[in-house]
Amino acid sequence: MRIFGIDPGLQRTGWGVVDVTGNRLTHISHGVIQTNAKAETAERLTHIFEELMKMITLWQPTHAAIEETFVNKNPASALKLGLARGVAMMAPAKAGLRVAEYPANLVKKSVVGAGHAEKEQVQAMIRVLLPGIEASHDAADALAVAICHAHHGATREKLGGIMSGGVR
Amino acid sequence: MRIFGIDPGLQRTGWGVVDVTGNRLTHISHGVIQTNAKAETAERLTHIFEELMKMITLWQPTHAAIEETFVNKNPASALKLGLARGVAMMAPAKAGLRVAEYPANLVKKSVVGAGHAEKEQVQAMIRVLLPGIEASHDAADALAVAICHAHHGATREKLGGIMSGGVR
Repeated sequence: MRIFGIDPGLQRTGWGVVDVTGNRLTHISHGVIQTNAKAETAERLTHIFEELMKMITLWQPTHAAIEETFVNKNPASALKLGLARGVAMMAPAKAGLRVAEYPANLVKKSVVGAGHAEKEQVQAMIRVLLPGIEASHDAADALAVAICHAHHGATREKLGGIMSGGVR
Repeated sequence: MRIFGIDPGLQRTGWGVVDVTGNRLTHISHGVIQTNAKAETAERLTHIFEELMKMITLWQPTHAAIEETFVNKNPASALKLGLARGVAMMAPAKAGLRVAEYPANLVKKSVVGAGHAEKEQVQAMIRVLLPGIEASHDAADALAVAICHAHHGATREKLGGIMSGGVR
């Protein structure tokens, strides 16, 4: 399977694509979508959405995953984060993909082995898991959520299948 | 001008269209987009976006306006509201329209004359301003933000033009 991971933000949205064959992870691509802080919010959201759609069309993922965002922020920041997250979640859905959501601590545990890792540790482990790859924080977080889906997604889908009667 | 007003929400998104010629307001259409609470969030967001796009294509507004959301809520609710607001703001932007944002108290003041009106008062004033129209709370709020833009938008755009050198 080919997984598209997203780490959404109004200023910077990271994305990353990995292939998974059995236990083997292969890095495909990653990047960061930056928006102009001086542009109007609706334009910035459209830019994020359109760039994600381009990457999804280009890389043809079969699965998508996004981090469940921390909400221990003030309501104004949470609302702003929600704007970017809304359009980011819609991009894979428009391409016909289900969007799996993972709590931030599960994503960190999947790549670092601990739920309270720093961004630098996530970035360092991405270098270990995907040798030769240099990703910025945002892209590393997006690759991490894709890797998290590689570890948990298959199980979840099997369980989902069993729980819903085994028929998909 | 023809104004498309939006009152976004993950559960229910109200929309309303009014025409403005001088001081004359004419009701064109309104409605509420409801989403299935049991569906996945990405699907619900896609539904909101696609329905708004249909209405924009159908009614061909020349302007769009949205309420600046209250953020005196808990961060989790603010994030959820942000998701819907993000895709709702993007719909008119994708159709090439600028999306004006108005604080809730200015919207209320525009239709009721007071900044702290209840939803019922907004709904009642919509019946007065647009005779013969029965709109639910969400659609009434969307019509109210469109009417607010009718009152303030022209002024704002003129000022914007002057402040940016008078060239648009």
